[in-house]
Amino acid sequence: MLIPFLALLAGAQAAPPPPVSPPAPPLPSDAIAADWRPIPDDELMVITLGGNRSVVIRLAPRFAPEHVANVRKLALAHWWDDTSVYRVQENWVTQWGDGTEKKPLAPGIVEPLAMEFDIPAFDAAQRLSRSDAYSTASGVTADGWPIATDGKAAWMPHCYGTVGVARDSLPKTGSGAELFTPISGAARRLDRNYTIVGRIIDGMKYMSAMPRSDAAMGVYATEPERTTIVSVRLASEIPAGERPKFEYRSTDNVRFAAYIKLRENPAAPTVGLGGIDICDLPLATRRVGAK
Amino acid sequence: MLIPFLALLAGAQAAPPPPVSPPAPPLPSDAIAADWRPIPDDELMVITLGGNRSVVIRLAPRFAPEHVANVRKLALAHWWDDTSVYRVQENWVTQWGDGTEKKPLAPGIVEPLAMEFDIPAFDAAQRLSRSDAYSTASGVTADGWPIATDGKAAWMPHCYGTVGVARDSLPKTGSGAELFTPISGAARRLDRNYTIVGRIIDGMKYMSAMPRSDAAMGVYATEPERTTIVSVRLASEIPAGERPKFEYRSTDNVRFAAYIKLRENPAAPTVGLGGIDICDLPLATRRVGAK
Repeated sequence: MLIPFLALLAGAQAAPPPPVSPPAPPLPSDAIAADWRPIPDDELMVITLGGNRSVVIRLAPRFAPEHVANVRKLALAHWWDDTSVYRVQENWVTQWGDGTEKKPLAPGIVEPLAMEFDIPAFDAAQRLSRSDAYSTASGVTADGWPIATDGKAAWMPHCYGTVGVARDSLPKTGSGAELFTPISGAARRLDRNYTIVGRIIDGMKYMSAMPRSDAAMGVYATEPERTTIVSVRLASEIPAGERPKFEYRSTDNVRFAAYIKLRENPAAPTVGLGGIDICDLPLATRRVGAK
Repeated sequence: MLIPFLALLAGAQAAPPPPVSPPAPPLPSDAIAADWRPIPDDELMVITLGGNRSVVIRLAPRFAPEHVANVRKLALAHWWDDTSVYRVQENWVTQWGDGTEKKPLAPGIVEPLAMEFDIPAFDAAQRLSRSDAYSTASGVTADGWPIATDGKAAWMPHCYGTVGVARDSLPKTGSGAELFTPISGAARRLDRNYTIVGRIIDGMKYMSAMPRSDAAMGVYATEPERTTIVSVRLASEIPAGERPKFEYRSTDNVRFAAYIKLRENPAAPTVGLGGIDICDLPLATRRVGAK
């Protein structure tokens, strides 16, 4: 089937190869146990779709505190329960929330909020060798978030799987009730124009594989096309026995630095390009314990 | 539903707004009738999937003559009929061809071919203001193909929807019988390591929305998961009355130059980033006549 080499390049979340004997020695770019750090329970949000499919979002309260506060309030109010994924536009975004446009926001939700399109600082623990068409430098924070800068402002890039806040025309910023995620690689031009509240770290395959709508803006024209959202919960609200646990790979270490270099300059016979895009660099997370 | 502004940014293939009265004057970035040029019938290849879903590929014989010659032979031999889409890996690729690995190639198909990872020249009619992590310059040919260069070599980038030739480990190049397309934005690191034979210009929504496989390398573990390929035909082989016709938007004109500038520097209140990635710049094609 001519796939092995492609598969080797497929990223951190590909299935591991079968064990060999003796085991290969660790690479300088491999994480050690201490590199994995827990993601706090109140920074994990679980969307349960029909068919018992779960999508896990890592929230970014440090970068969008007001919007993430709203998102947490909406989750705690169970506001999204029985809402839907109502928009899937080819080569663009999947969007969810209240497709009826009639549901009042939960108590305590204020709109409009302050704009949180930019983030406080470009505090990259690792920088990439080359940046891209949208920034002058990009890199990752110690706790595994992709960030970019033009030398003045700093922001999070709209990579595949990023969770952004839908809004009406500016100066609206959106309450956080309607969320979207890019399902191709074409959303970077939303950088600095939308607030990002987190990114999908598990179950993106459900959001990305939904049927595209040909209707205007990719909004499903009929109710049956929509995917029901059974519930949305912060992990901190889920009973301990069922609560999902995730860790992120920290980047402020020589191993992650070596990992970036390996991605930028892979070993021959692969032709290296000398760089990698911030959205193509896998920022690893992993589930701890059983699903 | 808080979508209008996002929708405005959604690209050239978004549904047009309802007509207004009087009609808005054309923008300097709008194509005129003469900008649309026909794609030759033997450069269009139609994959018909079960359920009468069609995927149309524009072939790139100028950039990968040997591999495109093979692809044409395979199509004319009806080699792909009753093969399948057998691999869909999340955040990576959809791949199709002979999932059984047992089907002999059609007569006249020779493997290995010369490598056609690079293209003859960086003959960009328009360049982007800023390039990316994988190249020092990028742009588009007059006939609408994205290209990149490091100042020495030139190549086509592995954008979303690009059609690449799967292969075994180097120095294999692949016959062209097994093809793949990136379904997220993470495949640029395949640049200069795989041969590109074209790109999907219609029906990408079918390739991108197939269920992801959790099996190794995203290869469907069971036969029923696969999507049957009913037929693959060059448009030139299809009876005139049913033959699809497509045009591309040419780029060697001031209107496309203005279009790039508009994408790089959108009007306020949108915050412009001063650049756009070659894979995010819509290179328009359109169907002529009824489907």
